[in-house]
Amino acid sequence: MSLNASSSSTPSRPIVLTGDRPTGPLHLGHYIGSLKSRVELQHTAQQFILLADTQAMTDNVGRHQRVTENVMEVALDYLAVGIDPEKSTIFIQSQIRELYELSMVLLNLVTVSRLERNPTIKEEIRLRGFERDIPAGFLTYPVSQAADITAFKAVLVPVGNDQLPMIEQTNELVRRFNNVVGKDILVECKELLSATSRLPGIDGKAKMSKSLGNSIPLGATPAEIKKAVNNMYTDPNHLRVEDPGQVEGNVVFSFLDAFDPNKDELEGLKAHYRRGGLGDSVVKRRLEAQLQAMIEPIRTRREEFSKDKGEVLAMLKRGTERARAVAAQTLSEVNAAMGLNYFD
Amino acid sequence: MSLNASSSSTPSRPIVLTGDRPTGPLHLGHYIGSLKSRVELQHTAQQFILLADTQAMTDNVGRHQRVTENVMEVALDYLAVGIDPEKSTIFIQSQIRELYELSMVLLNLVTVSRLERNPTIKEEIRLRGFERDIPAGFLTYPVSQAADITAFKAVLVPVGNDQLPMIEQTNELVRRFNNVVGKDILVECKELLSATSRLPGIDGKAKMSKSLGNSIPLGATPAEIKKAVNNMYTDPNHLRVEDPGQVEGNVVFSFLDAFDPNKDELEGLKAHYRRGGLGDSVVKRRLEAQLQAMIEPIRTRREEFSKDKGEVLAMLKRGTERARAVAAQTLSEVNAAMGLNYFD
Repeated sequence: MSLNASSSSTPSRPIVLTGDRPTGPLHLGHYIGSLKSRVELQHTAQQFILLADTQAMTDNVGRHQRVTENVMEVALDYLAVGIDPEKSTIFIQSQIRELYELSMVLLNLVTVSRLERNPTIKEEIRLRGFERDIPAGFLTYPVSQAADITAFKAVLVPVGNDQLPMIEQTNELVRRFNNVVGKDILVECKELLSATSRLPGIDGKAKMSKSLGNSIPLGATPAEIKKAVNNMYTDPNHLRVEDPGQVEGNVVFSFLDAFDPNKDELEGLKAHYRRGGLGDSVVKRRLEAQLQAMIEPIRTRREEFSKDKGEVLAMLKRGTERARAVAAQTLSEVNAAMGLNYFD
Repeated sequence: MSLNASSSSTPSRPIVLTGDRPTGPLHLGHYIGSLKSRVELQHTAQQFILLADTQAMTDNVGRHQRVTENVMEVALDYLAVGIDPEKSTIFIQSQIRELYELSMVLLNLVTVSRLERNPTIKEEIRLRGFERDIPAGFLTYPVSQAADITAFKAVLVPVGNDQLPMIEQTNELVRRFNNVVGKDILVECKELLSATSRLPGIDGKAKMSKSLGNSIPLGATPAEIKKAVNNMYTDPNHLRVEDPGQVEGNVVFSFLDAFDPNKDELEGLKAHYRRGGLGDSVVKRRLEAQLQAMIEPIRTRREEFSKDKGEVLAMLKRGTERARAVAAQTLSEVNAAMGLNYFD
């Protein structure tokens, strides 16, 4: 498995910017929501994948070690699922000063009240219980996100429906900047909406999350997978095998919807479960076998890469250098347009 | 006149951070309020003087050219009044990416409501008529200012009384950062309050300002100086020479207070003016002669330096490189403390 970072992308491929906040190892929810499509995208797009440590810091003050340590974990997850650093550029956000620089330029182009109206931010402020004590870095992180996207002139950004306001905010900043300098320097982007619905937690909660303790990490052992499937929330009213069962909101079926390759068989199972006579244990065994088969090579690759973290770090360094060159080019255009190129 | 930037400072000298927003050539108000003391400070302090173009951008969106063009004008003013780039480090803020980087780190350590409570920002928002449309970059500029101060580990910051909240905000951020990383990396600073009171505009308005058209620039010609003094606001009730006149609020006397080297003679004049019998034209002639004598060498030096702007730019480049090395050292400590030194 080579970790060379030489680019095989061609300029005609659309530029995609995506990434994750490194606050914990990734799990099946990430896999189905984004990682899987990134592996596919690397054949058709010029993909920049950022380990968003700077962004993660905005709501992890005092937990910076958690962020910096998980950069390696998430990088291992990327490699484990088959993201190829020869095809995609994997980089660490904090190591590219040009992103800070562009953030500061864009901060002048948006009002505080506009940031406060951002529905995604509003919801996240509510979730985190910040109320009036919103860190300034958190309120302004959509600007930093816009800098990430525009520094690479990305035209496609994979997002969920809940993140559409971020795309809108980014494009507002692009238009405002270009208008102010009277030149089309930055590029507007479009959302690339995920085709799959969000994977629930094994407890049936809407979102799978490490912090909620309801996730199956990509490096899960066979025993952990077995336990997770056994603990999955099904239909609480499906007490006896012969009872009719409910498929909607039944986590085992949500997972089968996401992972079962045989959709016809799955529909047959659902019908059977609905009319009664199909026990939870049967569907759980089916799901477990599929998850074991799917995760096994991921876990093996993950373990393989973990053996030489120095090499993974070297890969990240090469990716970061490659990304930095691209961002530096954009910033040199931005600065020239604003007359901030005194020494050129 | 040499423009070499080799440092003659010694580590035992206190580090001072000061500077100006380059939005226009400097004037006598700047001279008496800060430039004069900078010339003195360079013998006793390690002085970093920043041309705060990034900060000026926060309320000059769409007027970026005005900012970038005035960087040279202000640099010429510095050299003209006798700031010696061998003794002080003159640099351009925007060219030091480490300042953006530190700003983004500090942004996470302050809440939006704390920034909104800053009295200086409140007053400036009122003056600029921003109301609810405050650019995010403007609300957060005290954080950027704190980054400027702390990146150089400045212990003294020359300010007016109205800027004390900025010092307080900076020190709050220093304590918060050091507390979060559990290590004393950043350094608290103290205000260096100006001994002189603010010079009024020639129209009697509280503040001399280019934009108010009531200033005397440091490069003023003899004719401009003459005209400015002739137009100075005196005592509107002092109609005839024999009438008693008022010294308080009389701009000519405010200027004499600031510039007249012979304080005894000045007190005599004031007494004479108060009891009547001393015409405005007499005091104006005295002031004009003094201003002509004071500005003449400044203007001459300014013209001299203007002849080779390439050399001034080279001086700024050397100063910026020297400043950048200092800021880079601080940022390397900051990043190491946060674990953001992945590639070291």
